[in-house]
Amino acid sequence: MATLTFPIFFLMAILPFSEGYLTYIAARLPLKGFRAAPGAPWPMPKEWTNFTEQFTVDPKTFSIVHDVDCDILVAAEKRYQDLLFGKQSGRKTPSLKQVEKLHITSGKCEKYPSIDSNESYVLKVSPGIALLESSAVWGALRGLETFSQLLYIDSNNEFKINATIIVDSPRFQHRGLMLDTARHYLAVDTILANLDAMAYNKFNVFHWHIVDDQSFPYVSEEFPALSRKGAYGPNLVYTKGDIRKIIEYARLRGIRVIPEFDTPGHTQSWGRALKDFLTPCYGDGKNPGTANYTSHAEFEIVNPILNSTYDVIHKLFSEVKKDFPDQYLHLGMDEAYRACWATNPEIKNFMTSNGFGSNFTLLEHLSTKIIIWHDPVDNGAEVGNDTIVQIWKDSSFDPNKFKPGHEYLSKVVKKGYKTIFSACWYLNYISYGQDWRKRYECEPLDFAGSEDDHSRVIGGEACIWAEYVDETNLLSRLWPRASAVAERLWSPRHVKDIDSAAFRLDQQRCRMLRRGIPAEPILNGYCEQVDWKADTNPAVSAAESTKATKPCFAFFIVTVYIYSQ
Amino acid sequence: MATLTFPIFFLMAILPFSEGYLTYIAARLPLKGFRAAPGAPWPMPKEWTNFTEQFTVDPKTFSIVHDVDCDILVAAEKRYQDLLFGKQSGRKTPSLKQVEKLHITSGKCEKYPSIDSNESYVLKVSPGIALLESSAVWGALRGLETFSQLLYIDSNNEFKINATIIVDSPRFQHRGLMLDTARHYLAVDTILANLDAMAYNKFNVFHWHIVDDQSFPYVSEEFPALSRKGAYGPNLVYTKGDIRKIIEYARLRGIRVIPEFDTPGHTQSWGRALKDFLTPCYGDGKNPGTANYTSHAEFEIVNPILNSTYDVIHKLFSEVKKDFPDQYLHLGMDEAYRACWATNPEIKNFMTSNGFGSNFTLLEHLSTKIIIWHDPVDNGAEVGNDTIVQIWKDSSFDPNKFKPGHEYLSKVVKKGYKTIFSACWYLNYISYGQDWRKRYECEPLDFAGSEDDHSRVIGGEACIWAEYVDETNLLSRLWPRASAVAERLWSPRHVKDIDSAAFRLDQQRCRMLRRGIPAEPILNGYCEQVDWKADTNPAVSAAESTKATKPCFAFFIVTVYIYSQ
Repeated sequence: MATLTFPIFFLMAILPFSEGYLTYIAARLPLKGFRAAPGAPWPMPKEWTNFTEQFTVDPKTFSIVHDVDCDILVAAEKRYQDLLFGKQSGRKTPSLKQVEKLHITSGKCEKYPSIDSNESYVLKVSPGIALLESSAVWGALRGLETFSQLLYIDSNNEFKINATIIVDSPRFQHRGLMLDTARHYLAVDTILANLDAMAYNKFNVFHWHIVDDQSFPYVSEEFPALSRKGAYGPNLVYTKGDIRKIIEYARLRGIRVIPEFDTPGHTQSWGRALKDFLTPCYGDGKNPGTANYTSHAEFEIVNPILNSTYDVIHKLFSEVKKDFPDQYLHLGMDEAYRACWATNPEIKNFMTSNGFGSNFTLLEHLSTKIIIWHDPVDNGAEVGNDTIVQIWKDSSFDPNKFKPGHEYLSKVVKKGYKTIFSACWYLNYISYGQDWRKRYECEPLDFAGSEDDHSRVIGGEACIWAEYVDETNLLSRLWPRASAVAERLWSPRHVKDIDSAAFRLDQQRCRMLRRGIPAEPILNGYCEQVDWKADTNPAVSAAESTKATKPCFAFFIVTVYIYSQ
Repeated sequence: MATLTFPIFFLMAILPFSEGYLTYIAARLPLKGFRAAPGAPWPMPKEWTNFTEQFTVDPKTFSIVHDVDCDILVAAEKRYQDLLFGKQSGRKTPSLKQVEKLHITSGKCEKYPSIDSNESYVLKVSPGIALLESSAVWGALRGLETFSQLLYIDSNNEFKINATIIVDSPRFQHRGLMLDTARHYLAVDTILANLDAMAYNKFNVFHWHIVDDQSFPYVSEEFPALSRKGAYGPNLVYTKGDIRKIIEYARLRGIRVIPEFDTPGHTQSWGRALKDFLTPCYGDGKNPGTANYTSHAEFEIVNPILNSTYDVIHKLFSEVKKDFPDQYLHLGMDEAYRACWATNPEIKNFMTSNGFGSNFTLLEHLSTKIIIWHDPVDNGAEVGNDTIVQIWKDSSFDPNKFKPGHEYLSKVVKKGYKTIFSACWYLNYISYGQDWRKRYECEPLDFAGSEDDHSRVIGGEACIWAEYVDETNLLSRLWPRASAVAERLWSPRHVKDIDSAAFRLDQQRCRMLRRGIPAEPILNGYCEQVDWKADTNPAVSAAESTKATKPCFAFFIVTVYIYSQ
């Protein structure tokens, strides 16, 4: 027994076919679950039949072909050719049968993804031609991503892929990720990198919380002063060109872009350009524009009694609708605290004479479908049958202030609204250790309700508010924690063996690292085929990586030798 | 009142002389404390007299000169010339008096920093020649860093510095930062970048927890198998060349490098190369090399009854002493759980016949001064008068298991040991929000003790264990949280106005960003002179930054105009 242990240790330490090597906190606490073989996909497909027979791929000759005329597929082929082989210096295994082509049969080539996008696909990996079939281009994109995950490079630097049959489709239709570009500005390149990471995890909605109290980086033609006065700086804005670039990048990845212009609260930055847009508060009980900290500031919240307010909203949102092709706009409506309004005599009069109370909305006259946060519904407002309601409140934020997220969810679906669940997926709330586990364990449908009630939960969103997040930490903080949400939203409900999922998640994080997303570790270990020296200093890497192959190979031979004794 | 508010908002939004702009969570919760003027140093000097008179500096002609022959100063001059002007395209203000030179008068040019390094200095900023005087080169380094922080660039792109007199010296002699390169490997470049960040914050000890259970990246000539079998990969190691590079880089910044080779626990990775080094556990009560999870693994903890163990330790540590010039080695000694030893009949006999109990140490025969974690002292062991004891346990980790850190500290100093405090500075433990505040508020001497007791607290260390930390998040997770520890350890005890410190800390984080350290935000806002587009895509930045100056300038003019109405 004692003599056997060392070679086993030894083998674990190099694990020749591993893409990522996850290890323990302490030797006396071995990891639970099953260590996934390399090439395990994330999120888990609906049906995945993984045969033991292995094939190889020759990076010099492999090609992706498709039979419909579709710009999205043309771009995807190019992208995945790079993702499959780009940064890796692997080769085929001569002794194995080859997968020579991936043939995509895709139906409809729609221009933009929508809430009705069909993302289902069937993938068959066999020698010669592997087949990817989908009824719409969106499924082809998802299947291509899966195919790229099945392929891996072993420690001999050879490409391998198992015989596989996958029949896949998402569990929830709306699988979103929200970024906040108002509390800290995010460069366009970072947003694009995040769209890449989203595609690697099969997210399909980028919810862009673009403006807020702190800054207004959206450049409006109608109201140029909004960003000129409200952005953090002249460079810290999103131009029409930036927005087009982001939407196009997202479209090619099957990701919708839904902008949020939060009203009537969270509008402090609008007030820098628009005199009268905010309500003058009477903090001293007598004079407009006086604060009563910490109850309210000098001016706060949209002023609902001026026609100019509605005029601004209408014009601005009309412009926004032209910029963003998605059918939906997100109008916010969260945390519209009434403290300031309650001090203002004109608004009090208006409320009394107009029956204005919990029913205040700014929804009228907008020819768009809308999403809002659930606060108005919570306060008893009717918000329109077609409105999608996003649930955010959760007792974990403050048990004295909030109920468990599922209670809000249950209440909203039982009123008949379609909903998006986010309460357990506020990823700005960090905690020590394996925080991803509680994200993974959160089940949206974990509430008592009819089948109809459950069917109104159309999906969920991982949200990351930016009080403490900017370029320095956005991607490493989001990934792979958001990947946990991705699997929960894509994979069947029964996929919940979290200890085994950890090994697949580790593979997925290593995959993201190789693709340039700085996804943080989920536990001790390392990623193969990730050369940190290369990342920090490209000049060094070429030399280092050639150096590396030899000892690695020798190491492998020695291991096999010892193990076979 | 109402009409005045908009211009004030407006002015706050661009704050023409700010280096960093920190803003609120919500408008009704304005920030407390005093917003520091730009050019505020971090950590706060012992005495800082900041006059209102302003001078300018011409980046084309400014020079740093010194009057002693010292390689450290030659390198520092070059480095600070870059730090002062390198990435910034500023110019002098024609209308102001110029600081033309910084003249350094430094005493001793010691080769290596030590526990006795004198870091005190006096800095006088006046027109013509600014003076920096220190009795040793280490003080000159600290003063140069301070000088570089006093200089700032305004929104007109002009360099400014206030008339200043600073008389400065550190409160604690040992101001360390611990990195763990065993749970995840860290590239040499990252360690060097971290040394830069340490110098920007006046840390003076890099405590290098180089090996542990998970991996053994130290390449030994005496025992090459240790890293060959124990490292995560053939590239994931530290060669003699790497170590020399790191020590030299640190030396030039006045930073000591103290390696930790943790024994007798935390040695699992050693066992992959060294048969017999670990103790065979009898998990089934009969056979050696059997585990009893979660009590112990098959083999664990150094085997204390074999001569070979002492031979390995002696030879390895002799080699380590040659690599690391510092007088101190850190020997770990933490968490040497006895569960495995207690199952092994030979070790039980040995313990009985040798009176071996809590006194087990591996300290003998090493001609070095040593640092250990406080566990052995806690267990009642005598560890040698000269040993420095580092306190790590804290009730915040687990209130059922540990007492408050200061209780351990008090106990250890009262036994007469010199100590380093880390209990409240385990920066791997992250929490949501302004986590830096509790790091800042932790006062090492906050325990009842005599002056002698307090004098035995020679400093502290920020530690970041790497279970969940690697290249992806190390620097952004450490900085500026570690800066909070830096000020606590350098500045006088009375420097504790935390709300005002927040503004200086924000400046310091913006300074680090400009210098290439991805320090994360401490609250909403932005940094001037940090162009994220430039960082992510250098090709874009040249075009973008020229574009930026004009609207910025116009913006400024407009503000002044509106404000003067």
